[in-house]
Amino acid sequence: MSAEPSLPTPSPAPRYGVWLIGARGSVATTVVAGCAAMTAGLHPPTGMVTEDPVFADSGLPALSSLVFGGHDTLDCPLPKRAEALAAGGVLPPGLPSAVAAELDAADREIRPGGPAAGDTRSEEELIAAFASDIRDFITRCGLEGTVVVNVASTEPAPVGSALPASSLYAAAALRAGCPYVNFTPSTGLHHPALAPLAEASGLPYAGRDGKTGQTLLRSVLGPMFAQRALTVRAWSGTNLLGGGDGAALADPAAAAAKNAGKERVLVDTLGAAPEGEVHIDDVPALGDWKTAWDHIAFDGFLGSRMILQTIWQGCDSALAAPLVLDLARLVARARERGLSGPLGELGFYFKDPVGDGPSSLAEQYAELRHFAGRLRDGADGRGAQR
Amino acid sequence: MSAEPSLPTPSPAPRYGVWLIGARGSVATTVVAGCAAMTAGLHPPTGMVTEDPVFADSGLPALSSLVFGGHDTLDCPLPKRAEALAAGGVLPPGLPSAVAAELDAADREIRPGGPAAGDTRSEEELIAAFASDIRDFITRCGLEGTVVVNVASTEPAPVGSALPASSLYAAAALRAGCPYVNFTPSTGLHHPALAPLAEASGLPYAGRDGKTGQTLLRSVLGPMFAQRALTVRAWSGTNLLGGGDGAALADPAAAAAKNAGKERVLVDTLGAAPEGEVHIDDVPALGDWKTAWDHIAFDGFLGSRMILQTIWQGCDSALAAPLVLDLARLVARARERGLSGPLGELGFYFKDPVGDGPSSLAEQYAELRHFAGRLRDGADGRGAQR
Amino acid sequence: MSAEPSLPTPSPAPRYGVWLIGARGSVATTVVAGCAAMTAGLHPPTGMVTEDPVFADSGLPALSSLVFGGHDTLDCPLPKRAEALAAGGVLPPGLPSAVAAELDAADREIRPGGPAAGDTRSEEELIAAFASDIRDFITRCGLEGTVVVNVASTEPAPVGSALPASSLYAAAALRAGCPYVNFTPSTGLHHPALAPLAEASGLPYAGRDGKTGQTLLRSVLGPMFAQRALTVRAWSGTNLLGGGDGAALADPAAAAAKNAGKERVLVDTLGAAPEGEVHIDDVPALGDWKTAWDHIAFDGFLGSRMILQTIWQGCDSALAAPLVLDLARLVARARERGLSGPLGELGFYFKDPVGDGPSSLAEQYAELRHFAGRLRDGADGRGAQR
Amino acid sequence: MSAEPSLPTPSPAPRYGVWLIGARGSVATTVVAGCAAMTAGLHPPTGMVTEDPVFADSGLPALSSLVFGGHDTLDCPLPKRAEALAAGGVLPPGLPSAVAAELDAADREIRPGGPAAGDTRSEEELIAAFASDIRDFITRCGLEGTVVVNVASTEPAPVGSALPASSLYAAAALRAGCPYVNFTPSTGLHHPALAPLAEASGLPYAGRDGKTGQTLLRSVLGPMFAQRALTVRAWSGTNLLGGGDGAALADPAAAAAKNAGKERVLVDTLGAAPEGEVHIDDVPALGDWKTAWDHIAFDGFLGSRMILQTIWQGCDSALAAPLVLDLARLVARARERGLSGPLGELGFYFKDPVGDGPSSLAEQYAELRHFAGRLRDGADGRGAQR
Repeated sequence: MSAEPSLPTPSPAPRYGVWLIGARGSVATTVVAGCAAMTAGLHPPTGMVTEDPVFADSGLPALSSLVFGGHDTLDCPLPKRAEALAAGGVLPPGLPSAVAAELDAADREIRPGGPAAGDTRSEEELIAAFASDIRDFITRCGLEGTVVVNVASTEPAPVGSALPASSLYAAAALRAGCPYVNFTPSTGLHHPALAPLAEASGLPYAGRDGKTGQTLLRSVLGPMFAQRALTVRAWSGTNLLGGGDGAALADPAAAAAKNAGKERVLVDTLGAAPEGEVHIDDVPALGDWKTAWDHIAFDGFLGSRMILQTIWQGCDSALAAPLVLDLARLVARARERGLSGPLGELGFYFKDPVGDGPSSLAEQYAELRHFAGRLRDGADGRGAQR
Repeated sequence: MSAEPSLPTPSPAPRYGVWLIGARGSVATTVVAGCAAMTAGLHPPTGMVTEDPVFADSGLPALSSLVFGGHDTLDCPLPKRAEALAAGGVLPPGLPSAVAAELDAADREIRPGGPAAGDTRSEEELIAAFASDIRDFITRCGLEGTVVVNVASTEPAPVGSALPASSLYAAAALRAGCPYVNFTPSTGLHHPALAPLAEASGLPYAGRDGKTGQTLLRSVLGPMFAQRALTVRAWSGTNLLGGGDGAALADPAAAAAKNAGKERVLVDTLGAAPEGEVHIDDVPALGDWKTAWDHIAFDGFLGSRMILQTIWQGCDSALAAPLVLDLARLVARARERGLSGPLGELGFYFKDPVGDGPSSLAEQYAELRHFAGRLRDGADGRGAQR
Repeated sequence: MSAEPSLPTPSPAPRYGVWLIGARGSVATTVVAGCAAMTAGLHPPTGMVTEDPVFADSGLPALSSLVFGGHDTLDCPLPKRAEALAAGGVLPPGLPSAVAAELDAADREIRPGGPAAGDTRSEEELIAAFASDIRDFITRCGLEGTVVVNVASTEPAPVGSALPASSLYAAAALRAGCPYVNFTPSTGLHHPALAPLAEASGLPYAGRDGKTGQTLLRSVLGPMFAQRALTVRAWSGTNLLGGGDGAALADPAAAAAKNAGKERVLVDTLGAAPEGEVHIDDVPALGDWKTAWDHIAFDGFLGSRMILQTIWQGCDSALAAPLVLDLARLVARARERGLSGPLGELGFYFKDPVGDGPSSLAEQYAELRHFAGRLRDGADGRGAQR
Repeated sequence: MSAEPSLPTPSPAPRYGVWLIGARGSVATTVVAGCAAMTAGLHPPTGMVTEDPVFADSGLPALSSLVFGGHDTLDCPLPKRAEALAAGGVLPPGLPSAVAAELDAADREIRPGGPAAGDTRSEEELIAAFASDIRDFITRCGLEGTVVVNVASTEPAPVGSALPASSLYAAAALRAGCPYVNFTPSTGLHHPALAPLAEASGLPYAGRDGKTGQTLLRSVLGPMFAQRALTVRAWSGTNLLGGGDGAALADPAAAAAKNAGKERVLVDTLGAAPEGEVHIDDVPALGDWKTAWDHIAFDGFLGSRMILQTIWQGCDSALAAPLVLDLARLVARARERGLSGPLGELGFYFKDPVGDGPSSLAEQYAELRHFAGRLRDGADGRGAQR
């Protein structure tokens, strides 16, 4: 037999890390299970915006290339959490066992969060420890790039100058050289002490507070009223939700941050804040399902009084998870393309987006499509700030 | 006394005609009363899109320059009709008496429609008579330009080759040299026999079926689902309405035309027609108020089942009237600027627009703003077809 | 001419007084205008339960025999208030002028309430003054019997031992020898200091908090779930209302009293309080109209999760006014029949009824029909307490 | 071996048969699985009215004593059907395997229904064959009494004199000496040809059309409006349902029977039929879940226009199954007590009850409780007809 010509060994496909703050929560569990399910061809990518052909040439990491890890203060193993979600109808029955290996793998990459009760470490020590966890993950898994995404329960608005937990994690992300996405209304990078660090890091970041239900609707209905010159007099809303977020947001201090984002879209699209309140009720009986009722009183021609009501019934984790995957891919690629600073073009995903982009979903979607082009090789990717 | 220096007589401000088919109906009465109310400063122009600053330089006819007339087969005088609308809460109490003079003036310009029962005139004779009525109106009132707008009750889909009444009026508009707007789902210019006449006329025209409630909502919600990659499985709807339109649309043949428009927006924005039906119920107890309930079953991530419901409660005439005034102004100006053929840029206003524009309201609004620019003096206004 | 035989002068039909606390408010104005409208045959008695044939022999005062007066701290004359209500769609257009004489007559019988700011009178002096106003009304108008009805805005729950205004009026009613009805959640007779006075008075009384919307629905839906053995897990509700009551109840202290009544019906009919909150939002844009949304999550067979939602859109004053007239008639007659103490059989009308009757509307209705029999002449009317 | 002392053999507990027409459908499968689940203590008896203490002494058959069999034209084995229901969220995940033995046992007792396509048997032959199947079931299983319950898909209203399938089964029930319950709107015993047989049989029977959602609500809301003297002007409704019943009822002929029952409750409780239509849409995407929207336009005091809307989202099989078990127990016991003819006291369960009982749910519930007493040993059980 003759010697075969020596071919160059193909370099293995690059792998990307997704480091989840709140890695044992419903959203994170759904992210990990869902990514595995789509990779295995068990489910179509419903809800994944980045699977649209417009992103085909944007160089996004493949779903199969994503590796998950994260921080959490809880102990419940991911496979067990997934079983609980399946029992509650959040995950399809049978999925937890079908993707048990991937859940186990992610579970092994979760490190204890903090600060725990009685934890005497200083802020600096905590940041250093968290950053070290992330760097170890990158090294151990041989990752090309890693995005840190906050999907932990909403924390109360901070009082005083101490960094809240979400900001400690955000600082750790910067220190580990990772882009950061804040999918919650918690402070994260929005802390005065972190602003100079964020700017100096040269890293891209995105946030804040994923737009998954009531505010999503408001971002299309607000523009509709404005475009039709109809005067919205009062926009009232009630949210019922039962998962951990329901309990967290029953705390008025935590709800305040969320409501600010909800109101912002109305002010931006209507030109002024209408009357009306927003309530967030913790209703444990609803489990991970949430219901949002909106009542919009508006004036038509000659002052005629009209009303629109909307009722949105969705599964919070199932709404959030595909957006988290979208964001991880987009921000990982943005980092690869050298973009830095606030990624205002990702306003499509957030209630209270960084930067000063539009609040109308249609305009945000146009920005996102434009962003898809900026991510392509050869496109000019310098300068995310605009 | 010395002779005063002879100054050139200022030419009077030009006046524009709006010829309404169905001139004694709720919509027409609200159009006439509302235009007078706004001109007199009694009400702000809520619901009038053309009062937005983007149209400030488009050269649209002033509201105060509009003169109303029309055809109707009914006898009820406009002032009496307006009183009935005020009693039903459609017009503000007191408005009919405040604008009695304008209602009377329009009433004097209404001519009998047809064909009446037992009418033996041929189609050609009817068209000639209607066109003559319109020409007399223009001459008598010294009008600069006149737009014919169909706001009559929806007629059944035509069977056979005979021209339905709406098409007779449309043909009369062309013969009188007037642009035509079809605010209803009736046939109007959409008759094969009229296509060559419309093309040869060099006149602009717009339609079909004003988008005032359920379909307006669908044109913003459909794109939202598509942009978020959520799979709509079923979109079901029920409309309850009590005015003349309720009775007309209780006829399945008449409803068919309307439902085609409602479905089109879903097919266009979602990419395929979801399951689900649309019902239109005649509920006389509701008077001129209508309620539209929509139930949208959609799949999220991993096939999770979610639901959005919307309930729209509005006054049909109050929703339609400002759009009719918008369209009359826009089309009158388009004629003045020499545009001809189907005005696809006015898809913002219609369920089933002429031309092949987008179905998403946001994109339609962008087209409308662009159209505002085309109407300006000096802009290149040649060729409405695209 | 010969002397005519001397016939006994027919005694004039007896007249009954209705003394309204909050006599210039929306409810009171609607009561006065509506009573006049029905007496004049302008409107049928829609919403008046006591016009049902079952009350035909109960000896209730005729609507035409009712004479209105009351206390209020506001100045706005009733005819002007009625015009405002008609402009807001609460009263039919034209009604204020049609019943102007009756509105004027009632207006003349309204006396200043209190205590006003800076009022230095003692509780005793205020009670004496109010009682004197009521006695003067009875004498001046030659009334057979007079019922005092509290329809004033809800006051905050009292702190400390001082009597709140509603209790001062209630004490004045007792002192003037008048039965008392509390149509609001304010304290009224429910003050420990008044209990012995109420008992000693021998007068009948009724209350508390008229059941006009959300709680009315709950009193039929709660029993339905219980009878069908369906387990209600969470019952959440939001009320939007814009009139004076909306503003009053935006005060959490005032809302607390109202919500207690709302919750009571659930506890009584379901056997236990389900999860869920009730919100009362002040939305001035809604004027006198209110919207109540209820979301009921319940378990069916084998733990299947199901949901009922209700949306109630009504005019608060129009819902309350006929019940106020019902109560005035029933309680006036109860007094005439010698009944005393809490009229538990009137639980049909209240969120938080006195006595210990049933909470299901159907059972309350059965009690009311039974009460109709007790009011008949010849029936044994002794002892309202059971 | 020595002879053991001879103890009297304890007589085995009596067992009762439930023969289901449509035994492989969703409702029947849920009935069988649910009965087993409750017997095994896996689920509480939510939705089972007969588990209320009021029935404790009524001598009803224990759930553990029920034996299931039936007719069906389909082949799908019950365990497989149960798996499909669990996948659709109708049964709890895990239940089908937990009660696999009981599903298998019932599956073995299912016989082919008919007439199949091409079946040349006469009506008499079919009835004889069906009756023979039932008698064999009774003998084979040693049953004390057996109730035949129709839970098959709704059939079109019959035309002509031929007996529809539901009536063939009903006749077979009579011939086999079994009481009959019609849980559907199909004809069943309501055929003129069967009336004399039913009367001569001396058997009790109940029906028609289980009240599981929209009509259940109407039976409490209708009385509420009537008791409050509020004038319902229009009551409109839309039902979306996706299971087999959705498809069956999309046939207007089948829907007609169902809608008659829905309207009856309004006529009976309101005194007259209001305006408004009822739609039943087949929406396969909803699977076994159904949504019913009701819109009720009513007049309040002085003609004020108000609206109540209800949205009921439930699982059809889970709503029906416990009622089917209730009825089987109640009717088996009624037979045991010697009752015969139409059981009007069971109107609580039906849209269109036999006999002439009340239509208000509260009154029907009172009748049911009274019936519980009649079933007790020693109570006078003669004469079900009243």
